[in-house]
Amino acid sequence: MNVAVSQLNPTVGDIQSNKEKIIEHINRATGKGADLIVFGEMALSGTPTYDIVNMTDFVDRCYSALSDIAEAAANIDVLVGMPTVSGDDTFNSVAYIREGKVVDFFSKAMPFSRDELPYYAGIDSPSFFDENESQTDELPEHIITVDGYKMLIMIGDDLQFINSLQCFDTPRTKPDFIMHLAARPYSHGALEEDIELLSSVAKENEVPLVSVNLVGGNTDIVYYGSSVIFNKQGQMIKRLKNFEEDFDITDLSSENIRRHKSINLPVQSASSKVRHTYKAIALGVKDYFGKSGFTSACLGLSGGIDSAVVAAIAVDVLGANNVRVLMMPSQFSSGHSVTDAMKLAENLGIKCEKVEIEPIYNSFMKGLEPIFQGLPFSLAEENLQARIRGTLMMAISNKFGNLLLNTSNKSEIAMGYGTLYGDTNGALSILGDVYKTEVYALAEYINHKGEVIPRSIIEKEPSAELREGQKDSDSLPVYDILDGILYRLIEEGMSLMEVAAEGYDMEVVSKVSKLLKASEHKRYQLAPALRVSKCTLGKDRVIPIVSRY
Amino acid sequence: MNVAVSQLNPTVGDIQSNKEKIIEHINRATGKGADLIVFGEMALSGTPTYDIVNMTDFVDRCYSALSDIAEAAANIDVLVGMPTVSGDDTFNSVAYIREGKVVDFFSKAMPFSRDELPYYAGIDSPSFFDENESQTDELPEHIITVDGYKMLIMIGDDLQFINSLQCFDTPRTKPDFIMHLAARPYSHGALEEDIELLSSVAKENEVPLVSVNLVGGNTDIVYYGSSVIFNKQGQMIKRLKNFEEDFDITDLSSENIRRHKSINLPVQSASSKVRHTYKAIALGVKDYFGKSGFTSACLGLSGGIDSAVVAAIAVDVLGANNVRVLMMPSQFSSGHSVTDAMKLAENLGIKCEKVEIEPIYNSFMKGLEPIFQGLPFSLAEENLQARIRGTLMMAISNKFGNLLLNTSNKSEIAMGYGTLYGDTNGALSILGDVYKTEVYALAEYINHKGEVIPRSIIEKEPSAELREGQKDSDSLPVYDILDGILYRLIEEGMSLMEVAAEGYDMEVVSKVSKLLKASEHKRYQLAPALRVSKCTLGKDRVIPIVSRY
Repeated sequence: MNVAVSQLNPTVGDIQSNKEKIIEHINRATGKGADLIVFGEMALSGTPTYDIVNMTDFVDRCYSALSDIAEAAANIDVLVGMPTVSGDDTFNSVAYIREGKVVDFFSKAMPFSRDELPYYAGIDSPSFFDENESQTDELPEHIITVDGYKMLIMIGDDLQFINSLQCFDTPRTKPDFIMHLAARPYSHGALEEDIELLSSVAKENEVPLVSVNLVGGNTDIVYYGSSVIFNKQGQMIKRLKNFEEDFDITDLSSENIRRHKSINLPVQSASSKVRHTYKAIALGVKDYFGKSGFTSACLGLSGGIDSAVVAAIAVDVLGANNVRVLMMPSQFSSGHSVTDAMKLAENLGIKCEKVEIEPIYNSFMKGLEPIFQGLPFSLAEENLQARIRGTLMMAISNKFGNLLLNTSNKSEIAMGYGTLYGDTNGALSILGDVYKTEVYALAEYINHKGEVIPRSIIEKEPSAELREGQKDSDSLPVYDILDGILYRLIEEGMSLMEVAAEGYDMEVVSKVSKLLKASEHKRYQLAPALRVSKCTLGKDRVIPIVSRY
Repeated sequence: MNVAVSQLNPTVGDIQSNKEKIIEHINRATGKGADLIVFGEMALSGTPTYDIVNMTDFVDRCYSALSDIAEAAANIDVLVGMPTVSGDDTFNSVAYIREGKVVDFFSKAMPFSRDELPYYAGIDSPSFFDENESQTDELPEHIITVDGYKMLIMIGDDLQFINSLQCFDTPRTKPDFIMHLAARPYSHGALEEDIELLSSVAKENEVPLVSVNLVGGNTDIVYYGSSVIFNKQGQMIKRLKNFEEDFDITDLSSENIRRHKSINLPVQSASSKVRHTYKAIALGVKDYFGKSGFTSACLGLSGGIDSAVVAAIAVDVLGANNVRVLMMPSQFSSGHSVTDAMKLAENLGIKCEKVEIEPIYNSFMKGLEPIFQGLPFSLAEENLQARIRGTLMMAISNKFGNLLLNTSNKSEIAMGYGTLYGDTNGALSILGDVYKTEVYALAEYINHKGEVIPRSIIEKEPSAELREGQKDSDSLPVYDILDGILYRLIEEGMSLMEVAAEGYDMEVVSKVSKLLKASEHKRYQLAPALRVSKCTLGKDRVIPIVSRY
């Protein structure tokens, strides 16, 4: 029995293109004699769809596309994820096509509330879809038979029911395979942890498991691919590519599956983390541009590490010809800011233009003079510089159609250490879910085959350069300590006492916590940030702006 | 039996202050001989709390405050809303205090998914709290007995179960009262529709009903108060104030409740809508400032109607001394823009300062000259003017600590007719959920006791004045038509065909729909908008930025 796994990169809402890709893979699988082809969760509609699924004709259009798909599948069974409607309910479902006809739909149960779900809660879950209450009771009915093999269909997190339900107690109902259609997004460790979890499901139930994942970026979420097949011992016998579309046909007949050599499960390490982070971000950028029809980006180069890393990624993904950079020094910029930025541009093979902001700054101050009436230089003047830069970048973006890339990192976003409508500008935040210490790791990764980002950029002390001699460490703890505290407060949800108990100074912890609370209003207005952590600010951690907790 | 209704305005997360207010009302009710005092849903924690309830020690601190409340309630029964925890689950609950001790908790069932919920879905529902599955089965256990009367405790939308459960079939279990603790937010028509619904619950079940609502603004949500008491015929016998804290004691013994005169149920009208909208927005502004510790606002006056309405509301709420306005005319501003703005400022009793933006604009264009190289005037130059204004306003905001009020309206936000980091700047969007035609209605309401907003502002043709002779109607349909189309697409979720079938030109409908889809990325970065409609963009209608639907 030959099973084709189609690891596609659909575009949310683009039913027509997604359908064409699906039919193309069906033809390919049919041509190679596959008995069944399996696509990922919501492969036809793309995901996350949020409220699009609740728009009048969207699901109807999915049904109509499904009919076309069925026509193309006369000689192969198909399992494809899509939204369905029943009465007033909208479900996250899988359509089953056999002999050119849609013969059944299976819907996700999804009875999870947010805090029971893993890190990617909120993407499809109770907010936009209905629960399929019958699913939990009627798991044995979610079975199809292909080539004499019984296959249990599972969607996404529903897989977690299997153990608790013990629905395989009788040999009569026990399936020969679990077919798992998923939309597993990237987050640090996901590639290893998800695969470990899938392996254990196969092993504990003693059933071979095929898990088909989506791949690709969709606004801020990146599905990482890495579809897998396990034998009933939980050994991995096939793994598709990470972060790329892929296609595979495997003979899963009992005899053959037994003969398959097993592949080692992936192991987390610092180097796999930085490599996967880089690939997730690169794919996120590529698809944000490709799927929204943009080809070129712009950004400001400050001479600091954040903009250097973003520029390197942009050039890698979009090509040197499609990245426009601008230096915007002020009277407070150090000499090395300009020379470092120019060196970086040279290494990347991009042209770097320069606009001095001092004359513009002076024209603002002249206009404001009657109002400011000689009040001393303060935050207003610091932020003004950042906003002049943000406005210059947007003028270029508007003039030439380059999307502005935001360069803020997660550490400064958490601390509110950035100027709204200034350096927070941008269509997409590349590093908004990457702590500063992780930005350094990305810089080293980018340089692993030779210097792209000049050493002097990596080694200089971080500074916003908005006043004379300013250093980040004037206002914030050094980043090693700051990131350690932030990770515990945000990702691990610790209380201040718990963080301090891990060896951090209580006064520093308390200051960090205060700054984190006080900057919620800024985060509310930021561009979407490519999600790579298990707790993206504003997404996995939603805090009301006006609150005193 | 005397029942006190306490309609409080808690601050989200401020357990200490909320507790003090609760104790103050308990003392007042005890002093007046009340047997029971009832507070609103989540009165102790404030709401919406979002992820705050899932933070390590938050619910513990609520329990601890509850102990203090119990101590203060030796001589009165208390029902107060708060979050609770049981194992890994977090519930939206009501604590019952009797004789100075916490004797029971009742938790909200909340088995609704978003599309089954009314317009204020997503505030507390499945995303942040767990379902209390026992509730639906064990409603008869959610009963307390006070002074011999059996009272069924219901929280928020759980009230909708009552009819379907038919749990009152036996006289033995039938309660004498329904005590409903709610957090009902304002939306157009809510004051009339909610009360109608509550009345029908009392009437159909033939049980008197007390519904205690919260009041107050919490970031973008405004609870409207208007707590009510119905007799078992569904007649309203008491109604507390709209949009204000209030307190009431009513003798609800059977004899007395029968004697109570009934009050007419409120009826929706154009004039009640505009009055309630004004009050909801005014309260939202007041509490945004008060609860976040700000006292003064700033905004730019363009001479147009949106900024005029916002200025009038700000002066009404914060006082003329606390509102700083700035005119920022350009070479494209018409003469009447400045004179109208000055007349408005005069009417409001506020000082209006002026900064000409042309010199700043010229300094930008000079800096950009080597890059723009003589390319013709385009969107980039239009937006530049808006961003100079936005930057000037933020400089003033930073210098003097005035919160910047955003003046964008829902129609232009829906169309993307605004400049990101320019006129979209601001901490709070006052009119972001108010269609342009509704802004005119607000202006007339503001003028109902005499001219505040000059007639010339109300009567002039809308223009962004970013190029010579520009009018909104150059790019958009006239607002009567635009708002009609937008309301149908957004609030009523109609398809293009359905909107056209109501008499709108298909070409115009299609253009509006395209602009609505194309501007999602701008809405993602806007300030929170005070919610007054039944479908706030980005909240009740969440659309992925990168999508082709």
